Amino acid sequence: MKKDNSAPTMKDVAKEAGVALGTVSKVVNGLPVGESYKIRVEDAIHKLNYQVNSYAQGLKANKTYTVALLIPNTIDPFFSSLAHYINIALMKRKYRMLLCVTDYDPQQEQEYVRMAQQNKVDGIIGLTYNPELIVEENTPFIAIDRSMGPKIPCVACDNFAGGQLAAEKLADLGCKNVAFLRVGSSLVNEPNKRKAGFENGCLSRGLHYEMKILENEESYEEFERFLSERIHDGKLAFDGIFCVTDRLAHYVLNMLRRLNQRVPEDVQLIGFDGVRAFGNIDYLCSTIVQPVPEMAEICVDLLLRENELMKPPLVCLPVSYAYGGTTFG
Amino acid sequence: MKKDNSAPTMKDVAKEAGVALGTVSKVVNGLPVGESYKIRVEDAIHKLNYQVNSYAQGLKANKTYTVALLIPNTIDPFFSSLAHYINIALMKRKYRMLLCVTDYDPQQEQEYVRMAQQNKVDGIIGLTYNPELIVEENTPFIAIDRSMGPKIPCVACDNFAGGQLAAEKLADLGCKNVAFLRVGSSLVNEPNKRKAGFENGCLSRGLHYEMKILENEESYEEFERFLSERIHDGKLAFDGIFCVTDRLAHYVLNMLRRLNQRVPEDVQLIGFDGVRAFGNIDYLCSTIVQPVPEMAEICVDLLLRENELMKPPLVCLPVSYAYGGTTFG
Repeated sequence: MKKDNSAPTMKDVAKEAGVALGTVSKVVNGLPVGESYKIRVEDAIHKLNYQVNSYAQGLKANKTYTVALLIPNTIDPFFSSLAHYINIALMKRKYRMLLCVTDYDPQQEQEYVRMAQQNKVDGIIGLTYNPELIVEENTPFIAIDRSMGPKIPCVACDNFAGGQLAAEKLADLGCKNVAFLRVGSSLVNEPNKRKAGFENGCLSRGLHYEMKILENEESYEEFERFLSERIHDGKLAFDGIFCVTDRLAHYVLNMLRRLNQRVPEDVQLIGFDGVRAFGNIDYLCSTIVQPVPEMAEICVDLLLRENELMKPPLVCLPVSYAYGGTTFG
Repeated sequence: MKKDNSAPTMKDVAKEAGVALGTVSKVVNGLPVGESYKIRVEDAIHKLNYQVNSYAQGLKANKTYTVALLIPNTIDPFFSSLAHYINIALMKRKYRMLLCVTDYDPQQEQEYVRMAQQNKVDGIIGLTYNPELIVEENTPFIAIDRSMGPKIPCVACDNFAGGQLAAEKLADLGCKNVAFLRVGSSLVNEPNKRKAGFENGCLSRGLHYEMKILENEESYEEFERFLSERIHDGKLAFDGIFCVTDRLAHYVLNMLRRLNQRVPEDVQLIGFDGVRAFGNIDYLCSTIVQPVPEMAEICVDLLLRENELMKPPLVCLPVSYAYGGTTFG
């Protein structure tokens, strides 16, 4: 037994067991050795309370079994739910996950990508709106919601179909005049297809529609002005509104209350994302639900696939509609 | 230059620069060497695109600059907000965070603790309700919300003061007959002090109070029965209710609606945690707010402190009251 307090090494185990160092190494790495040797080494490991040093193991395999998740924050419910399910999908495969909240900071994001190249992680799953981010082709990277080039797979829900579904649902529920409200960057990204899908749905179902698109969250009062200008004799020109996110729908719901419009009696409202109260209770509004557990599973599956040929540039997963009190059904 | 495709090693850098291996090691580790040597090594590193192998570095320092966060999930808004701010507090100190969602699985939790002992992380911050969890004294561990022994610091909000504040606030707002509703384990943990604090506040302010405590979430309908049995001629016996969490307050709010009780006109309602819609918009109910960013900061600070004597067994951080529409103010 060692007399000092330092952790026992593989050498100490070899000495205790009375075998060569190589024999201990074989046992630790699961390689075949004679049964009597194996028992002696295992007894010594147990006696010394020897812990396998994962750094030494990682150095050998040049694999970390660690994946980094780049995400703006875990406060927004859509992001925190993604983080949760990606974590579970990785754990199922005995991988660990580094959480890297970026707060939309491009420098921070680039730093995490660099980390992957320093053998610190085996790959990255990233939700970033940073158009400047440089990801070299040999870095295993899966993008969520924004295509980053033909060699980097992008996973998203079927945003176009989601927009279309919102229009069709409003038509089914009796709406004739609808509006689409969006806030967000004009950057080419998957969620922008919600607009195109909604337009398509309106055209195919003969709905009159109007669009109001703002660049950033600070100008929410412009939505209120837009809506109030379309109220004549107390009656809003729209009987249906589709908001690009549940978050925006939450704000619009409050605006409509201030403008004395009843939801859903006067105007029906559909959001997008599928956010629930406290993460798993009721939907906060009627909504197009993103399949977050399935998106998480496919991100991890694609990242860890060895065969590069089996990595498609874009994977879109099906959305669904959920009633959340702001429509007739 | 190497002809094969393998990543360049420190040896390759030494050969390229025409210096000893030890010189490269010194430069990589920031130790002093002659300026001309330093330039030659740096040129070689640049030319070969040599990446420092973090495994080799970790092996040397026996430090990983990685901390594991054990948390039941990141779907619940209180948990996801904790994960967010702990991540930020670690990043500020150049530490990385492994997210380990446990889904309350004791085996999973024990596995993560074992990981810390295998040099895979420098320490653990854990929110666990597992009374069986074994954490050896030499494992750097910070517990959130539940004391795990005198040698393991526990960080919590001041739950007793929070309960007391809820009672005082209800008294200030004109309540005379109040109720405390709690769901949760009977395990000794910090949040259980909310009850004691509330009782204390009721006694000091002369409020009549009644308590209803359930063991698990499946029996929520018992709360509805409890409340409906206390309605006589359409009038509820309570004019104020304190719920142990905002999540429970959300359910109780729906129950009160079903029982035709108006909130706050007939009965005022206060929750606990400080959960906001979409993580950062309005409070979901009037609530006692946990100081999550400050709790995160102190967890990280305590974990990384070298001086064991400066690690107190329990740190309680101050709570505050926030209006969220379910009280008169």
